[in-house]
Amino acid sequence: MRATPRLRNVLPPSTHQASAALRERVRRPALLSKLTTAEELAPLFQIGWSGFTGVGYPKTVPTAIANHIESNNLQDDPTTKKKFNLFVGASVGPEVEDRWAKLDMISRRYPHQVGREIAKGINAGRIDFADKHLSMFPQDLTYGYYSLKKKHGDPRKPLDWAIVEATAITEEGGIVPGASVGATPEILQSAEKIIIEVNTRIPNLEGLHDINQSFLPPHRQPYLIKHPQDRIGNTSIPIDPDRVVAIVESDLPDNTGENSPENEESRAIAGHLINFLSDEVKAGRLPASLLPLQSGIGNVANSIIGGLADGPFESVQVWTEVLQDTFIRFFDSGKLTFATATSIKFSPDAFDTFYANWGNYRDRLLLRSQQVANSPEIIRRLGIIAMNTPLEVDIYAHANSTNALGSRMLNGLGGSADFLRNAKLSIMHTPSVRPSKTDPTGISCIVPFASHIDQTEHDLDVIVTEQGLADLRGLSPRERAPIIINNCAHPDYRPALMEYYERSLFECLKRGAGHEPHMLRNAFKFHTNYMEHGTMKIKNWD
Amino acid sequence: MRATPRLRNVLPPSTHQASAALRERVRRPALLSKLTTAEELAPLFQIGWSGFTGVGYPKTVPTAIANHIESNNLQDDPTTKKKFNLFVGASVGPEVEDRWAKLDMISRRYPHQVGREIAKGINAGRIDFADKHLSMFPQDLTYGYYSLKKKHGDPRKPLDWAIVEATAITEEGGIVPGASVGATPEILQSAEKIIIEVNTRIPNLEGLHDINQSFLPPHRQPYLIKHPQDRIGNTSIPIDPDRVVAIVESDLPDNTGENSPENEESRAIAGHLINFLSDEVKAGRLPASLLPLQSGIGNVANSIIGGLADGPFESVQVWTEVLQDTFIRFFDSGKLTFATATSIKFSPDAFDTFYANWGNYRDRLLLRSQQVANSPEIIRRLGIIAMNTPLEVDIYAHANSTNALGSRMLNGLGGSADFLRNAKLSIMHTPSVRPSKTDPTGISCIVPFASHIDQTEHDLDVIVTEQGLADLRGLSPRERAPIIINNCAHPDYRPALMEYYERSLFECLKRGAGHEPHMLRNAFKFHTNYMEHGTMKIKNWD
Repeated sequence: MRATPRLRNVLPPSTHQASAALRERVRRPALLSKLTTAEELAPLFQIGWSGFTGVGYPKTVPTAIANHIESNNLQDDPTTKKKFNLFVGASVGPEVEDRWAKLDMISRRYPHQVGREIAKGINAGRIDFADKHLSMFPQDLTYGYYSLKKKHGDPRKPLDWAIVEATAITEEGGIVPGASVGATPEILQSAEKIIIEVNTRIPNLEGLHDINQSFLPPHRQPYLIKHPQDRIGNTSIPIDPDRVVAIVESDLPDNTGENSPENEESRAIAGHLINFLSDEVKAGRLPASLLPLQSGIGNVANSIIGGLADGPFESVQVWTEVLQDTFIRFFDSGKLTFATATSIKFSPDAFDTFYANWGNYRDRLLLRSQQVANSPEIIRRLGIIAMNTPLEVDIYAHANSTNALGSRMLNGLGGSADFLRNAKLSIMHTPSVRPSKTDPTGISCIVPFASHIDQTEHDLDVIVTEQGLADLRGLSPRERAPIIINNCAHPDYRPALMEYYERSLFECLKRGAGHEPHMLRNAFKFHTNYMEHGTMKIKNWD
Repeated sequence: MRATPRLRNVLPPSTHQASAALRERVRRPALLSKLTTAEELAPLFQIGWSGFTGVGYPKTVPTAIANHIESNNLQDDPTTKKKFNLFVGASVGPEVEDRWAKLDMISRRYPHQVGREIAKGINAGRIDFADKHLSMFPQDLTYGYYSLKKKHGDPRKPLDWAIVEATAITEEGGIVPGASVGATPEILQSAEKIIIEVNTRIPNLEGLHDINQSFLPPHRQPYLIKHPQDRIGNTSIPIDPDRVVAIVESDLPDNTGENSPENEESRAIAGHLINFLSDEVKAGRLPASLLPLQSGIGNVANSIIGGLADGPFESVQVWTEVLQDTFIRFFDSGKLTFATATSIKFSPDAFDTFYANWGNYRDRLLLRSQQVANSPEIIRRLGIIAMNTPLEVDIYAHANSTNALGSRMLNGLGGSADFLRNAKLSIMHTPSVRPSKTDPTGISCIVPFASHIDQTEHDLDVIVTEQGLADLRGLSPRERAPIIINNCAHPDYRPALMEYYERSLFECLKRGAGHEPHMLRNAFKFHTNYMEHGTMKIKNWD
């Protein structure tokens, strides 16, 4: 492995002095002999990082590597140019990921990303990216599916390097993560060499995590979780200390930015949804305390959780992927009894509040690995109520979560399909329209045929926009279309969508093909019209 | 409920004599007082049947109902016309389902169907149909999602009637199913009134089934299955005997027809697949005995299982939805140690062989409910190798399993997505082309954009045709397209597909949207060309 000799040189024996803060956090003394500085640790090769939704990722080492590459102008010359395959549970802070992308240091990035520069690199063809269900990524990594052609080093270890953040290291060498678990257990398990950034600025979060052992088939075990608060693991991630090549102290915060602000539209959507849930309780299809909630990221999710804090349901539980700011309000309302996720993505201010009042929350909160948090097994067993935002939904309830106009990657699939495919109630919420450059309602989020499909008609129960809610349970495609169009589409697009449906129905029935009527020649006309004229408002269907 | 008074009249007290065969099968004597004939039991209303893949369905009562309706010309007059909502785990024999469809007796049919007449009714707009993941249908039924608007009868019972086949009834009133379990437990649980056809022609299959109790969230329990042979239930389905309104003796066989014959193409596909699996074993990514196999229906599936009977793998296990004829050969080869499914769909001759040698197979075979057989929880835990046939796959590995040309329903989704979404290896196999009326290679099964999407790019690992195999693990969309085109597409279509990809790439990169390149204006040109000219061979992409 190319980087090894260089690293060996910088490592033993360590000449660095551990700070008092670091000595308190690293309770296995032998590991302190591996103390080094981030600047000494570049360049590397096929690597995994801790982190999820911009929280709990390594900050100092990746920055040092970028600094090293930039200050030596390595990227200007093909013979010194460094490119890495980067594997992280989900997204990480832009100051590292976007900077790496901008320096053209990323060759391949799986299974999720958020950031202007990284998306640009993917859409420009410089970065190979595939979004994968977040529950599956860690298992595919340990199966060896991302290292099929690995020839160098240990063939049983898919990754050359893992760089992970810890808020403490136990006497046994176990890693206590920061405010996310994500794929860190499997990334550690999959790496030949491990570098640990011990973040002494974030509190030691020991006790917040539930880390179970991850087995491979045919030895995989049931996840014995029957309620969100059930623990099935330990409070730290076990590692092989022999593979730890360096410990680095870090005092950088998670660079999370602000949560998306609520607005009138997001509150209208949340209102429809809370009414729907109330009706389900009245009909006896949900308990009065609901069933555990999953809620995505963004302002609608914030409005929903905010609405629940003021809402009619008591003793609510949450089983989700990520917690946002409004969860603090939900906790403080006394209506949320327990929440579990794989990551806490608070804004910097909310993190300050949270850490300052840590005692109030720690017994009502658990973080788990994304393989568990997003597990179909548990989502289906608990009967989760899942709520996520698509880019667009079509008139038969196929949804696009990832690619604008079919081709331009935005953020990636994330855990949306893990939840929507398995939930008891699978809900997608979106504004009915978005503005284009020239038309404030130029983009309809309800389209004849989704230009990319991540969630199928077989997966969704409810679509909701600020216009209203479509309850699709038990309906055939021909029953769904008029309801989605009339209840959810923006009035500017209802006539065109209805005409598409009716013409399609007429044509398809005529040839005995009327199950899910389409005019394939016109299926993407909203999209092609937008590409040509800057709006989805078509002139006609001819 | 409309039918109740009429039925009450015909039921108590029974004036029918039970045959000796029936008395031996119905061990709870009180139930024999409900003995009636099928002819006395019509008409009904919102009903569920036992049955799965044309096996284990009720035969005499549905036939009697159809006879009653036909002989009284009830369908000719809108005031006497009878239409039913029909819920069955999967498909049932054509002599009942297709006959009902032909008599226009079916208003709604969930969640699967196979048959000329029923498909015709769906595509003609007469029958409302929605295909649902087979693992989810039973839970959605018990959740009340198919009876949201039910106003009559008991609102907690989604179905008015269940008509199920049994091969015996235990002393406790438990129902021993025939050669399928499917959704029968939940259909029985969901029905106000139950009619049981005791089939005295089929052997008493007691011991073949593993029937677990089905709980609703928040009380659902883990499925404690770690190996295909693990039992978690009983050998019969418990019922409330008070809801049984009639017992009918039946001596009709399952009308399964012949399995699809293998051919050169299906053997070529099986050959590629067995080579691939051998390579996975060599690479250490699969154990020498593989992991439990799931195999769909059809001639390719038959060739694969046949190939394994002569193949290099020993001590193989099967966790699947349906067993076809070649499984007998696989069992007899000594290479298959255990198989479990929700249904046995043998041809009549193979059923005869199987029943005659029942002692050879009974300890190596279990049938479970479709909620368990197709459970994401167990499929993911066991690390299943899943293999299914689509109608078409696109160049980025989205697959269409259900709708020809986007709109015409063929058979329905079945369990394909239950398995492919959760398997360790998700494989789709298809011939590269099918004949159209005028061109022996007029339909390409590899297309630029699937005209309907049931399986997404995030779900598939491997595509295989008689041309070759594309291993897509760890590849980005831009890497996948050339491999699928070159390895899997028919040579007649490779140039056009490659040109589509390259032009799309060029156009999309130009506008910074090159993650999954498409020309939306041309995405369905293969399909529209076929509709206009009877072949997918287009002249050009302009």
